[in-house]
Amino acid sequence: MSPQAAAQTAPGLQAALDGRAHLVVSPGGDADIAFVSRDVTGLSTKHELLPHTLAFHDALRNAPSLRWVHAHSAGADRPVYGELRARGVEVTTSSGANASVVVQTALAGVLMLARQFPQLLAAQRVHAWSPLLGSGLPRDLAGQTAVIVGWGPIGQGLGALLSALGLRIVCVRGSEAPAAAPAHESLSYERLHTVLPRADWLLLACPLSERTRGLVGAAALARMPAGARLVNVSRGEVVDEPALIDALRGGALSGAYLDVFAHEPLSADSPLWDLPNVIVTPHTAGHSDGNEARVAGIFLDNLQRWMRGEPLLNRVA
Amino acid sequence: MSPQAAAQTAPGLQAALDGRAHLVVSPGGDADIAFVSRDVTGLSTKHELLPHTLAFHDALRNAPSLRWVHAHSAGADRPVYGELRARGVEVTTSSGANASVVVQTALAGVLMLARQFPQLLAAQRVHAWSPLLGSGLPRDLAGQTAVIVGWGPIGQGLGALLSALGLRIVCVRGSEAPAAAPAHESLSYERLHTVLPRADWLLLACPLSERTRGLVGAAALARMPAGARLVNVSRGEVVDEPALIDALRGGALSGAYLDVFAHEPLSADSPLWDLPNVIVTPHTAGHSDGNEARVAGIFLDNLQRWMRGEPLLNRVA
Repeated sequence: MSPQAAAQTAPGLQAALDGRAHLVVSPGGDADIAFVSRDVTGLSTKHELLPHTLAFHDALRNAPSLRWVHAHSAGADRPVYGELRARGVEVTTSSGANASVVVQTALAGVLMLARQFPQLLAAQRVHAWSPLLGSGLPRDLAGQTAVIVGWGPIGQGLGALLSALGLRIVCVRGSEAPAAAPAHESLSYERLHTVLPRADWLLLACPLSERTRGLVGAAALARMPAGARLVNVSRGEVVDEPALIDALRGGALSGAYLDVFAHEPLSADSPLWDLPNVIVTPHTAGHSDGNEARVAGIFLDNLQRWMRGEPLLNRVA
Repeated sequence: MSPQAAAQTAPGLQAALDGRAHLVVSPGGDADIAFVSRDVTGLSTKHELLPHTLAFHDALRNAPSLRWVHAHSAGADRPVYGELRARGVEVTTSSGANASVVVQTALAGVLMLARQFPQLLAAQRVHAWSPLLGSGLPRDLAGQTAVIVGWGPIGQGLGALLSALGLRIVCVRGSEAPAAAPAHESLSYERLHTVLPRADWLLLACPLSERTRGLVGAAALARMPAGARLVNVSRGEVVDEPALIDALRGGALSGAYLDVFAHEPLSADSPLWDLPNVIVTPHTAGHSDGNEARVAGIFLDNLQRWMRGEPLLNRVA
């Protein structure tokens, strides 16, 4: 925790906790409640845990009294959370805490691809003055169709901004019920393939679940129109990564912005790093200095609910 | 003109012109009206004219009957337009035709800088997995202050989107009168210096005029706070380029997105190409495939006004 964020959040946490509970699960200890802050995860990925993260996860596994774990992240698809839920521990997330930041990063990816920044930045590196007029004009973004998979805070936020830029928004989500504006149309995950032939943009912002794992495979990618682009700020497992690489190499997709991968860190020998018009970032779309205070706020809200015996927010079902 | 755009616009132009006027000034010819399309400018810059552009400009200079010239561009600061106005020729622009495209490109620049894409893309090139968490978190964009210089279609469009992202918008423009939303505050060009100490972002979207030439010089740059960034999608002459280079080198500015330069094309030996956190594009922020039809629409609207003897839109005063 940065000194600034600690100064903002610690008094609130302290006031909430005075004489009530031990908040941090320490190795070999026990607790009712655990708060998995960003410090616990640090630079560990879901697939490669650093020792301090593993020690914390093991402490959770070995805390017999544990009844509730709150995670700093928007998703709770790390294996430890599944294990805890299987033994009856409530798991809640901080979904929404970094949503506006992820939206901004995803929008950066959309705009960079739409405005051909990969090509422009390559020209910059060799000091070449090469206006787009001379190499094929980009298409107007207004009037294009964006299919947004996942309609939580990130999907809705991205939809609102892209709608303001003049795009048609198709929302794809867990429910069959019609979604409200900014969605112009909506459908369930299982019907994604029906809209893909119209998808200039396929934007992934869904949780990883059994319904979304592998949702974007070779068959889905083959249905997309020429010139289509993919943005993934959800989870790498939503996409069949070898099929994605084939689609990018073969020109079925003309570009992608990827923040998440089937295995993280992305292997240094993955072809994704060097494919033209592919932007790769290291699962960092949501990193921002205001997250910590927002996560603490969500946790404290839930802690008050817990102490009053009310249902928790952001429960993983 | 691309075949597609020609197919869209030619019938309208043809219908408007049948039996009325010769639209194109040909070398050695004469005309009442000239329409300077994108084809005339082509890859010429304001400072370096290709032969076909120069020939067209010379034809304008030598057309004794010329009374009105309509330009495809948003600005009319090329010397030929000043010469024509000096002899009483009306000059109108296509201000607004590519405004939404320039807004998108400028927003791409803001988001790339805010989300540290120059650093992230450098890591991508060497296949390094380096989350921002490990190198200093970016600041939340929400809550920052954007000073937007120029309150035409580009400034207002950019202001609306940045306001939606949670930024405070200060508009700096020709008038002293208060600007409406999305501006939270407004002031005249001459008072720019008073707001610079609060400017996390200085975004230039003004026309080039005697009031804006050199507006952002060493003294202005020195007033900006640590970490501030500059975006210029207006004209290079609004900024003192050597002072800008000094500010970027010395750390007074922590990044910039520049689409326009004091001399275009930017010299291959300019230090701007290689400065860290500086994004350079070749005056291409507005290039998009839908512009030609929009420019033709503005011209045809003005042509109808001209034939009815009404005042023209987008007149250069």
